[in-house]
Amino acid sequence: MEQRITLLTLGVSDYAKAKAFYAALGWSPALEVEETAFFQGNGVILALWAREKLSPDLGIPDDGARWSGIALAHNVRSRAEVDELVEQARTLGADITREPAETFYGGYAGAFRDLDGHAWEIAHNPGFGLDDDGNIVLPTGK
Amino acid sequence: MEQRITLLTLGVSDYAKAKAFYAALGWSPALEVEETAFFQGNGVILALWAREKLSPDLGIPDDGARWSGIALAHNVRSRAEVDELVEQARTLGADITREPAETFYGGYAGAFRDLDGHAWEIAHNPGFGLDDDGNIVLPTGK
Repeated sequence: MEQRITLLTLGVSDYAKAKAFYAALGWSPALEVEETAFFQGNGVILALWAREKLSPDLGIPDDGARWSGIALAHNVRSRAEVDELVEQARTLGADITREPAETFYGGYAGAFRDLDGHAWEIAHNPGFGLDDDGNIVLPTGK
Repeated sequence: MEQRITLLTLGVSDYAKAKAFYAALGWSPALEVEETAFFQGNGVILALWAREKLSPDLGIPDDGARWSGIALAHNVRSRAEVDELVEQARTLGADITREPAETFYGGYAGAFRDLDGHAWEIAHNPGFGLDDDGNIVLPTGK
């Protein structure tokens, strides 16, 4: 297995609402096919698809839980950006689960859940620089 | 918000076991800090971290569910690769939730859940070519 995630699909209960939420945050789909939105990310593609279709497609029983221990993170270049993005998400109806605050690793982060409960951390981590594409540059060494 | 996911964290119940599982699949961490493994992916970083730490860090109550409608996909270049990877995952103790088979979109895919229930689809989709880095090249148009 190569070290890559080609696509990350978020199952949604209301496709139009979910798409509008992400559109308002700044995500524009490169492709839309039969109520599936594909957003060109940084290598990985983010997709929105009906959760009721995703679960049987993968053979996974769905009990409707909204948290299974997966978090998406969006690292930004300043603390101010963390504040701005969390406020923007709040305005759009996201549930803010962590108000922006200092982190144990010396950074600053807030977190919200989208309309379907999917968790995003918005973080500024001075230890993880971002390159021109906004990708984390991991410090070397183990 | 820029269209990027900087980091995707999978919460795990047994860090050493999870790390060994991903190592056997071919993932080698670029950085390890206090039982957090960071794998350099294709732009996005994949991280493994204790689920019991992730949940309070984000302010999300954890009821232990193993599915919340999120799927990671790893697209490969041939059907044979789908078969091989699913077999490899099976050998490593993954739960195969979808045996490799034709998909509704004209591709071929299987799916498994890792030791913590996180879902991976292994897919060959002739409609989504892969570039030299293994990233999906989305067809243009909406």
